Amino acid sequence: MNEKQKKPQKLKARLPRGFVDRSAADIRAVNEMTAKIREVYEHYGFDPVETPLFEYTDALGKFLPDSDRPNEGVFSLQDDDDQWMSLRYDLTAPLARHVAENFNEIQLPYRTYRAGYVFRNEKPGPGRFRQFMQFDADTVGAPGVQADAEMCMMMADTLEALGIKRGDYVIRVNNRKVLDGVLEAIGLGDEDKAGQRLNVLRAIDKLDKFGPEGVRLLLGEGRKDESGDFTKGAGLTSQQIDRLLDFINILQRAETALGSHPLVQNPVASAEIDGGAIFDTLHNNFKDSPKGVEGVLELKQIWQLVEAADYGPDRIKIDPSVVRGLEYYTGPVYEAELLFDVTNEKGEKVVFGSVGGGGRYDGLVSRFMGQPVPATGFSIGVSRLMTALKNLGKLGQGEVIEPVLVTVMDGQDMDALGRYQRMTQALRAAGIRAEMFQGNWKKFGNQLKYADRRGCPIAIIQGGDERAQGVAQIKDLIEGKRLSGEIEDNASWREARVAQETVAEADLVAKVKEILAAQAEDRARAGGNG
Amino acid sequence: MNEKQKKPQKLKARLPRGFVDRSAADIRAVNEMTAKIREVYEHYGFDPVETPLFEYTDALGKFLPDSDRPNEGVFSLQDDDDQWMSLRYDLTAPLARHVAENFNEIQLPYRTYRAGYVFRNEKPGPGRFRQFMQFDADTVGAPGVQADAEMCMMMADTLEALGIKRGDYVIRVNNRKVLDGVLEAIGLGDEDKAGQRLNVLRAIDKLDKFGPEGVRLLLGEGRKDESGDFTKGAGLTSQQIDRLLDFINILQRAETALGSHPLVQNPVASAEIDGGAIFDTLHNNFKDSPKGVEGVLELKQIWQLVEAADYGPDRIKIDPSVVRGLEYYTGPVYEAELLFDVTNEKGEKVVFGSVGGGGRYDGLVSRFMGQPVPATGFSIGVSRLMTALKNLGKLGQGEVIEPVLVTVMDGQDMDALGRYQRMTQALRAAGIRAEMFQGNWKKFGNQLKYADRRGCPIAIIQGGDERAQGVAQIKDLIEGKRLSGEIEDNASWREARVAQETVAEADLVAKVKEILAAQAEDRARAGGNG
Repeated sequence: MNEKQKKPQKLKARLPRGFVDRSAADIRAVNEMTAKIREVYEHYGFDPVETPLFEYTDALGKFLPDSDRPNEGVFSLQDDDDQWMSLRYDLTAPLARHVAENFNEIQLPYRTYRAGYVFRNEKPGPGRFRQFMQFDADTVGAPGVQADAEMCMMMADTLEALGIKRGDYVIRVNNRKVLDGVLEAIGLGDEDKAGQRLNVLRAIDKLDKFGPEGVRLLLGEGRKDESGDFTKGAGLTSQQIDRLLDFINILQRAETALGSHPLVQNPVASAEIDGGAIFDTLHNNFKDSPKGVEGVLELKQIWQLVEAADYGPDRIKIDPSVVRGLEYYTGPVYEAELLFDVTNEKGEKVVFGSVGGGGRYDGLVSRFMGQPVPATGFSIGVSRLMTALKNLGKLGQGEVIEPVLVTVMDGQDMDALGRYQRMTQALRAAGIRAEMFQGNWKKFGNQLKYADRRGCPIAIIQGGDERAQGVAQIKDLIEGKRLSGEIEDNASWREARVAQETVAEADLVAKVKEILAAQAEDRARAGGNG
Repeated sequence: MNEKQKKPQKLKARLPRGFVDRSAADIRAVNEMTAKIREVYEHYGFDPVETPLFEYTDALGKFLPDSDRPNEGVFSLQDDDDQWMSLRYDLTAPLARHVAENFNEIQLPYRTYRAGYVFRNEKPGPGRFRQFMQFDADTVGAPGVQADAEMCMMMADTLEALGIKRGDYVIRVNNRKVLDGVLEAIGLGDEDKAGQRLNVLRAIDKLDKFGPEGVRLLLGEGRKDESGDFTKGAGLTSQQIDRLLDFINILQRAETALGSHPLVQNPVASAEIDGGAIFDTLHNNFKDSPKGVEGVLELKQIWQLVEAADYGPDRIKIDPSVVRGLEYYTGPVYEAELLFDVTNEKGEKVVFGSVGGGGRYDGLVSRFMGQPVPATGFSIGVSRLMTALKNLGKLGQGEVIEPVLVTVMDGQDMDALGRYQRMTQALRAAGIRAEMFQGNWKKFGNQLKYADRRGCPIAIIQGGDERAQGVAQIKDLIEGKRLSGEIEDNASWREARVAQETVAEADLVAKVKEILAAQAEDRARAGGNG
């Protein structure tokens, strides 16, 4: 083997498929957003708790949406004691494990929240990532639907705290028992039909997307999409399908009557449905299904509770078409939807849609326990909500000022370098964001180019002569741009500032503060005019 | 198979070995701490950037400390396209990948920071976790030691911002080239000796722990500890070991002269070593090693720079015994050490020790590139630093008030429940942390027990009669405890408040605010006296 062959091949720097790096702007936006969410949750009496990213695979369960094969969709590996561990795919299953493991120490009802990364081992695609952040809140040990009603109110308050106007969002509520009642009524109530039930629910969930005819195909043999891809159907008989679609029709009429559909122009005022006439109608349709009756009753109770707290249909609406694709829900399910239009990748205007949701999962903790432990909770998709807030211009209010740049001449001279460093530290000690140039100092032009690209507001310059005199030059880079015409002159009535001046080193910090203040005033003025 | 056998076994709720759940107190403490760290880094001109938890295994490299076998110590799995991915074991290797992958878009020098979880696939033990958080800062594209000097200053400022007094910490600085120079001098300079060099460095790193005799064993055949466990040595000849220990002796004397050792009672004043006489001595000892000479020169430059910025030996000290176990360091290495005593698990008083460190890694980015990309950075061990701050009482200043509890009677009555919910929402809307009881409401005593265990300051009670009259009872739970003698009466001179009173529903929020304010005053008074 000669030397050339032995030389190792250069490594290729690349992210694993389906993963992304996060930019400074995104990180700051998420921090700003999650701080506001946390504040609302704390007000509601919730405390943070966090679980690690790994769980034993068996403890995690097999509750992935859109996946019917066990352990499909999760990242798993075998520990050195042969036990299988998986990266969590949501924040609910780990919470259930946490509560069960610490059941004697935890004071129920237990209100908690947590933000964290979850992982899906799926085929990555555009906008489909294998690591993403969720922000969850849960109440464990709360049997009544008042806990579900409160979750919906907390979601509404959260969206408003983030700056989303009332009317620009809605929390839609349904009850899984209503849907289960429908399925019971068409003979899919038995335990061994669980898989088929889930497929039916997912088909119904596609109603907005494919319309009744598309759903009919998905409920039956299957559906071929425009690209020719075939999705296998739920395999119902045409008789079952007819009855199911009849039910859906009734649900949709109820939904319209409750004023819950965003596309309805004149929603029925809440006074008209007072007394719950609609619930009576629904109720009558479930005569042959005890589960359905129970679901309708719970829906009515939620409706009464949110009305009593003035969180009526302009914020929280009963909507019997909400499905939520997860298998573990046992009662109320709810979804937060943003109603304003955005332009999608095809250039079409579409309603922004869901940013989170959740529901009751009374069976998830008790899988580990000898007793029932009712619970309910919801999850916000952090990056999706961030996208929405960016669209609305509701993030990035906390403006970040780039650092003042102390440039470097004579970088080989430790005395000179020490002086630059001392100036930099003096600025920082005064609360000013500052940095000394750390690149190759020999080409001075590169330092100013760096300051320009980074958006530095001010550059400090000190050559040998200035050092001897104990002075430094301060360059106002924003004013410099304004004077050279690069910046739109939206504050032109004011006199020009001096774009570069020489000050004694002792006055450096005060002068820099003065210039930064003048720049801030310009920005405020430009913002006010704009 | 009969029915009984088919019944699934109950799942056991347990965390995977070596992982932990985080409590509310710890989460809040870390948030408080990282917010302060972030503020310092931002002041230094650093911006956040974040990478995902997975990297391709080859991009991650094999730079784990205390692991000489490739891929030992990391969690790895194979993607469905057969590529190996690993969970990151630190935040440096992923940053190197990020910079190389986005080299054309990134403006160098690139100052960034990030906090995140890292993973080590190691045998878990007490205090040894497989997932933990690091907080890193790095400057990429900075060739000069001024960038390393600045890192040390930033570490010092960070520790002070967290409330650690000057004198209670020190940043110790060395240069890997000095150590490499020593190794070169004893004939371990060649590339094929890299493994042996690393073993020697790790042996030297144990000087504080095992003393010169223990290190002599680790440099030679190996060392058997008290429990009989044998650690294989670096296999040096006795001649090599003698020369190496001579060098270490010189380094230690230099360290003492520079006043850098915390145990030295009368450190030499910095004036005495002005002019760098000590560096000249060191320099002379490296006549036969160009690398050593370079290292000493760089150390001297760092010393000059920190002196110029007034970050002298009471904050940053040159200490030629600092090693840092990572293979990828190429120049200056530095370590933040806390000097106050804590009691260890054996009841002995020990210096708290290292909370973070770092160094220059000029080769890490260029592994991917056709050009050199110098870089330096450091990492804080978040949970270790948090432990230190808790010891000092420097965390948890932002007191969390538990929620006001609205209790539930007649929970089957949706009108009553609606009223409770409405009161709860009114409190929250007024900025008061509040919750409605969500457990089984039927045993009222359990609700007050819950309030007591949770530490609720106030309970709101409304029965049927009160509801009819439009009033509610407010129970001051803190005053109630004081009156019943459960609380030490450290504010006894003041008159007793009424511990329970009846108010009109319309006055509820105002009255609750009043009681919370009185409780806050009591706490302030008690704190002032304590």
